[in-house]
Amino acid sequence: MFESFYEDIVVGETSEFGKREVTKEEIVDFASKFDPQPFHMDEELAKQSVFGNLCASGWHTASMTMRILVDDMKDRRFAGMGSPGLDKLEWKKPVFPGDILRVQSTPLEKRESASKPHLGLVKTETVVVNQNNEVVMRMVSNMMVLKRNPS
Amino acid sequence: MFESFYEDIVVGETSEFGKREVTKEEIVDFASKFDPQPFHMDEELAKQSVFGNLCASGWHTASMTMRILVDDMKDRRFAGMGSPGLDKLEWKKPVFPGDILRVQSTPLEKRESASKPHLGLVKTETVVVNQNNEVVMRMVSNMMVLKRNPS
Repeated sequence: MFESFYEDIVVGETSEFGKREVTKEEIVDFASKFDPQPFHMDEELAKQSVFGNLCASGWHTASMTMRILVDDMKDRRFAGMGSPGLDKLEWKKPVFPGDILRVQSTPLEKRESASKPHLGLVKTETVVVNQNNEVVMRMVSNMMVLKRNPS
Repeated sequence: MFESFYEDIVVGETSEFGKREVTKEEIVDFASKFDPQPFHMDEELAKQSVFGNLCASGWHTASMTMRILVDDMKDRRFAGMGSPGLDKLEWKKPVFPGDILRVQSTPLEKRESASKPHLGLVKTETVVVNQNNEVVMRMVSNMMVLKRNPS
């Protein structure tokens, strides 16, 4: 069922994928559930805010990024086994309705798990850019990945 | 309109708040939009996974945490002006349907902004616990906060 494993990850090799359009409806829907601050909910109040326009919750941007990553993992039949967390998450620019997001992903480090012979650990930089090639978000995440050949 | 400002933040002082019940419906709804992996979507497949049961996407847990934080900020009329990002985010344990989440928040550091006389910068540890007092998530975030008295 999986086709892409720990052994296939090349440190330093950047891949780019995804094309997700951000809608006003989704920004407001996400914010009303999880981040009900005026600049994510109300266009008029957002225009008076530091952002200048209605913009997505940073957690919404992170969640849309996750969807792009999961779709790519499924396309590649990648043996990702979840994440213990992030070393860094930076929201660099606001994400507005109509923006189109894509992801640039680069493995920074990989190593075999000391305790689990079937797993490797991979540290990856994920950069999210909009249609103007502006970086809107950047994160460094850790992921567990199955080995094709357990040691 | 605001009542709680940068000057009111006490480094090292932990406050606890929030009481959010996690539902199966919300876990599946969030996952179907943002993190469609089997262990967040399908009870039977989840039972065969490393998690042992249907569990929330880590991004869903982070988003529910944000809602708890925003509700608390509104209750306190806190002058938070958004976040440039996180230094760390750790998913420590799975979050299951029926879990009840609450937040323990501790300011770790505060300093005045060098460039913006009306703002301070606060680094905060946020720990999310379930009804058994198990830590399910931990993050260290940075936030901009208005001063009551700009320097």
